Amino acid sequence: MNSDRIKESQGIFVRAVATSMLAFLLILAHPVGVQAQVSRPRLLLSGSDVQLIRENLGKYTFFDQAFGEARETVHRALARPIEVPVPVDAGGYTHEKHKQNYKEMQLAGILFQVTNENRYAGFIRDMLLNYAALYPTLGKHPMATSAEYGRLFWQTLNETVWMVHAAQAYDCIHDWLTPADREIIESKLLRPMARFFTVEHAATVDRIHNHGTWLVAAVGMLGYALNDRNLVEIALYGTRKDKKAGFVRQLDLLFSPDGYYTEGAYYARYAIMPFFMFAQAIENNQPELRIFEYRSQILKKALLSALQLTDTNGCFIPINDALKDMSVLAPEVILASDITFARYGGDEGLLAIAEKQGKVSLDGAGLAVARAAQQGSKPFEFRYESVEYTDGAAGDEGGIGILRSGPIRDQSMLVMKYTAQGFGHGHFDKLGFLLYDQGKEIIQDYGSARFVNVEQKYGGRYLPENDSWAKQTVAHNTVTVDGRSHYGGVYKVAQQNHADRHFFSTSDPDIQVMSAKAEGVYQGVSMQRTMAMVRDTAMPKPIIIDVFRIDSKQEHQYDLPLYYMGQFIHTNIAYKAYDSIRMRMGDASGYQHLWKEAEGKADGAVSFTWLAGKRYYSITSAADSSTRVIFTRIGARDPNFNLRGDQGMMLRRSAASTIFATVIESHGTFEPVNEISSGATGRVDDVRVLASTGDGTIVEISGKDSLHWIFAVANKEASNESQHSISVSGKTYSWKGNYKIWKN
Amino acid sequence: MNSDRIKESQGIFVRAVATSMLAFLLILAHPVGVQAQVSRPRLLLSGSDVQLIRENLGKYTFFDQAFGEARETVHRALARPIEVPVPVDAGGYTHEKHKQNYKEMQLAGILFQVTNENRYAGFIRDMLLNYAALYPTLGKHPMATSAEYGRLFWQTLNETVWMVHAAQAYDCIHDWLTPADREIIESKLLRPMARFFTVEHAATVDRIHNHGTWLVAAVGMLGYALNDRNLVEIALYGTRKDKKAGFVRQLDLLFSPDGYYTEGAYYARYAIMPFFMFAQAIENNQPELRIFEYRSQILKKALLSALQLTDTNGCFIPINDALKDMSVLAPEVILASDITFARYGGDEGLLAIAEKQGKVSLDGAGLAVARAAQQGSKPFEFRYESVEYTDGAAGDEGGIGILRSGPIRDQSMLVMKYTAQGFGHGHFDKLGFLLYDQGKEIIQDYGSARFVNVEQKYGGRYLPENDSWAKQTVAHNTVTVDGRSHYGGVYKVAQQNHADRHFFSTSDPDIQVMSAKAEGVYQGVSMQRTMAMVRDTAMPKPIIIDVFRIDSKQEHQYDLPLYYMGQFIHTNIAYKAYDSIRMRMGDASGYQHLWKEAEGKADGAVSFTWLAGKRYYSITSAADSSTRVIFTRIGARDPNFNLRGDQGMMLRRSAASTIFATVIESHGTFEPVNEISSGATGRVDDVRVLASTGDGTIVEISGKDSLHWIFAVANKEASNESQHSISVSGKTYSWKGNYKIWKN
Repeated sequence: MNSDRIKESQGIFVRAVATSMLAFLLILAHPVGVQAQVSRPRLLLSGSDVQLIRENLGKYTFFDQAFGEARETVHRALARPIEVPVPVDAGGYTHEKHKQNYKEMQLAGILFQVTNENRYAGFIRDMLLNYAALYPTLGKHPMATSAEYGRLFWQTLNETVWMVHAAQAYDCIHDWLTPADREIIESKLLRPMARFFTVEHAATVDRIHNHGTWLVAAVGMLGYALNDRNLVEIALYGTRKDKKAGFVRQLDLLFSPDGYYTEGAYYARYAIMPFFMFAQAIENNQPELRIFEYRSQILKKALLSALQLTDTNGCFIPINDALKDMSVLAPEVILASDITFARYGGDEGLLAIAEKQGKVSLDGAGLAVARAAQQGSKPFEFRYESVEYTDGAAGDEGGIGILRSGPIRDQSMLVMKYTAQGFGHGHFDKLGFLLYDQGKEIIQDYGSARFVNVEQKYGGRYLPENDSWAKQTVAHNTVTVDGRSHYGGVYKVAQQNHADRHFFSTSDPDIQVMSAKAEGVYQGVSMQRTMAMVRDTAMPKPIIIDVFRIDSKQEHQYDLPLYYMGQFIHTNIAYKAYDSIRMRMGDASGYQHLWKEAEGKADGAVSFTWLAGKRYYSITSAADSSTRVIFTRIGARDPNFNLRGDQGMMLRRSAASTIFATVIESHGTFEPVNEISSGATGRVDDVRVLASTGDGTIVEISGKDSLHWIFAVANKEASNESQHSISVSGKTYSWKGNYKIWKN
Repeated sequence: MNSDRIKESQGIFVRAVATSMLAFLLILAHPVGVQAQVSRPRLLLSGSDVQLIRENLGKYTFFDQAFGEARETVHRALARPIEVPVPVDAGGYTHEKHKQNYKEMQLAGILFQVTNENRYAGFIRDMLLNYAALYPTLGKHPMATSAEYGRLFWQTLNETVWMVHAAQAYDCIHDWLTPADREIIESKLLRPMARFFTVEHAATVDRIHNHGTWLVAAVGMLGYALNDRNLVEIALYGTRKDKKAGFVRQLDLLFSPDGYYTEGAYYARYAIMPFFMFAQAIENNQPELRIFEYRSQILKKALLSALQLTDTNGCFIPINDALKDMSVLAPEVILASDITFARYGGDEGLLAIAEKQGKVSLDGAGLAVARAAQQGSKPFEFRYESVEYTDGAAGDEGGIGILRSGPIRDQSMLVMKYTAQGFGHGHFDKLGFLLYDQGKEIIQDYGSARFVNVEQKYGGRYLPENDSWAKQTVAHNTVTVDGRSHYGGVYKVAQQNHADRHFFSTSDPDIQVMSAKAEGVYQGVSMQRTMAMVRDTAMPKPIIIDVFRIDSKQEHQYDLPLYYMGQFIHTNIAYKAYDSIRMRMGDASGYQHLWKEAEGKADGAVSFTWLAGKRYYSITSAADSSTRVIFTRIGARDPNFNLRGDQGMMLRRSAASTIFATVIESHGTFEPVNEISSGATGRVDDVRVLASTGDGTIVEISGKDSLHWIFAVANKEASNESQHSISVSGKTYSWKGNYKIWKN
């Protein structure tokens, strides 16, 4: 790894001939020597990056596009008068204007470095001088709603993002500026903002949270830009510099050992930006910290786990407060995946992601990706895997399991969530699941109730219905007990608890199984959910077996909803349709947002079929007449039309201990253009729970063409070696390990 | 056109060297000489086609794919036992099996002709012998619901489609069969079916309707296959051979002079298949009829008008009983557009359609398209235009107008329907409209209520809600008077009436205007709707001006709904939300299917903004406190979950004469991946009706940044020369022609 290294001294580059892609990567891996004072630019972009970019412009399509777009954006900005408005709104014009300004400044900085054209530097200077005039006049933002207020923006968060970009812009033109302008910009803007961050918001600097990451990145990058060692140390190690807070501590605590970010992938997408930006700045200034190697390459793991938590279109699995359209196309992911590619040896899967993104970041890493994407041997493929990620800094606070089957163009994906709460954006959704097929959600998670940055929708913030509906347990495909959410819907309690993994087994591609437990989400109620993805030559697509076991000494009402996506086709339930007058299902815990569309009683196993896109889906769930089935629609108690009117079906049962045993099939085909419908009925006819003991649960699945399967799962501690034996009416089922399936 | 003609005699092809694309087309234009007895195959495929296909296999991707797919389909069929089940269902297994059988037979016939391999011919023979054994045992189909019953299928229609394919298969193997097998197949199957069609269903043969077209195509193609001149003449000229019915009469009556098919584009798609298939067979057998030239090339016009009636994704505009997924990818359109390309001189726009289809028909025309698509100079573009099609055989029964603006990748399209009823699949939707942007419906037509061929959904037929909801006036974006549908919702009355075009003007791309009138849809109520698409440099996208003028001496309740697609963002109406208990809007005429979600009263112009995809849309509609606004959702009185729960907003006003004057804007941008929302508020603030007389209507539009427009439309007879002058509070507006706009 050392032979082709670039050496930099006194601003003159001595570079070995490096034509191979490997050499290209290595150049990026160690761009600067260990020096007290690094030449500029020194944040995201290094001097050697600038040199490489100059030499390679016009060669690699993705990079040229990114460069061309940046030039267009900045030239449009140059053609307009600079506008630095007094901030008044939380998602409207002034909010967007300040966001636009920091983006334009940052891009102008890169253009200046690459082209040396004064107009770019002048633009940044004028912009910063405008801010230097405005900033001292500002108090708390008028739309601020919390202690995390900003001045330019309604919350500190956006203000730190502003600084992360502005610091880069300032760094790029620092040497070009006159000392007088530097003095104004530093004394009226940058140092007051540094004080605002590190003194007024000292608590946030020391907070282990994505807001904290943005804050330390802002402070640290500003520190490097200002040559202020004190700011850098605060950023790295906390306001007390005792390493109990700050960037390094955040790397320890915000990710599990697998790289899972505790707020979930949608927020990982947001959080990785400051992580990667600041890490890049640290590497450029203090390579001796070996930040990319820290904690067994935790940054690489963070990026790769976030990518695994996307569907085959690259959209993030919408657990917690996620917006469903967010995807790997986000600029944060572009930056992080490019840096990961460049820093960690050129993972070809990341080139597949880059092709989906269609653009690269405007730095040395982006250049490396653009080059490799152009020269590598296609097709590239990002390998989506069945994988489990533990949650919690020590990896002992539950986790999230993903089972996948089939090629990218037609992949089944099953996700079960048994994580910790994940801070304030977490949902009360223990043991909830999502099912994907045809590249989209078939059984959905609602995600969050928010229209991000849409001023008319509550200023673009999370809507009230995010709390009253989206976070509630009943909004998820898991069991609500007695009509109340997990942990009583109390965040502080939830944040101190987590679900637990039981086992996760994907060694046999024909039967992948995951099992998890939730204790204490309701007092006196124990829950265990086991979900299997079973591939069988007799079935067109894998089927899902879902065994939700509930143990309690007291009788409770158990509700298990399934938010299916698509068109209701058929059910075997004789139901009463409330299609003349419609009422809400309840008054609280999210039930107030559900219309009851129809209701009926089971008579044997419940079956329900819907059509989504070009396939049919059916559930068959073990039941008797004690099970009621309710068909629901979201949207009651929603006077401002903030919710999506999606449908659902809910199994309701009053019992002490019980098991919801369900099979989900994907079957048949519907081709509207060819007017073909086939296989509209599933194969499974019946599901029965044969036995459930402390040792294990036995489920029988039967269907057409003599289908007869027995699925057994171990309920005690997980082990591949344990022996289990359960007798059911004279017949004994014995197996070794966590699960077993017998077919016919 | 004659120099390169192929001459065929005694089965030997004498062909001029024809290498240019032009020559290639000409070969197809006149493949056979005028002869009493044409050699086989002689229906869709001619002997010269077969020869050309043999020579060109392996050369042109689209054709090779089609050929490869056909081979795969047939080889799968060969690997299975032949199954000719006793028909029992209307959209289930046996229905689909018989459909599959005819497709496989037809393809096997082509494969046999091209390859001479006996296994293909043997497959067809065995299949036909099986049918010959089954058919004589069949009575009326058990699921038949009407006089148009079939034997193999629940309706005659499918049976004729079966025959159109089977006749081709039989023709392909006719010479290969033993006389004994021919005798069985003809006497037990083909001739009894011919009798069934021409005697039992003589009335349908003589019906001017798409069922009639399929029937005459089946009878005529069978006639050519059997060398039965009598059947051919019945097909061409009706059972009485008096030319008052039959194929030629259908060409006269089912299309307007512009090619508009009276049932609408979705059914045009279905109907053109037998038109083009039979025309091709006629041309191959009786070229002296010059069927492709008939009625000024009406077949070409039929295809091209159907293509213009698609959105930029190629999906048919879902007026009347249309299913929204249906598109130019349909096999019927592939066949018709390939034949149109080959017969009418190689329209390059059709190659763009072929590229979208990604496949071609397996005949000489398909070969010509595949070759041209491969060799032509790309990119091909199908030119979507602003165009009006008249309805009615004489072109005097109203019509349909389409205004378009912008390039294909981002085109605004406005459609207003003022046609005749269009037979039994027509809707009570006079003066209704649809608005497209971003390649999709922004203000939608519900289309039909049907899940085609989905057995569990009413046997795959039109659902009861198709009559009770989808056809009703209130399901469309037009005015319902006193809560009753046009013509009292009575088909027979509606079928005898039509709306009328007033004018259609697209000469100025900056202001395209269409206007139409409906008299007699309600007694004593006259309606005129004028819709303009106005492009202005001050607006990001064209805006729509909609002036719906109603004249009546009596007071009525006027309801004008808008079925917007997307997310409710904001309204200026202070409304009461029915979000706790929800009720239906009415008991009949479709109102029973509408939930009332919220209701309020206007206070000045009504404004409403929604978000669809990546843009915002706003309406601003002239109103005062006599206007109520009701927010609706489809899905009441729908016990079987047959409807889509789409939202709408409705303007309601009680008055004698009144005007609904509305502006629809497309504005701003919402980019979820970049978390950007901008321009979420429209520019128009107010719309007022300044005057409306028998001579004209004057509407004032005002908005931000001093926007002030006056739009005037002439109400009397249409003329570009007429002078109009209307005084409003001392100010006189004078203009010449049908409309005028004054800006600022």
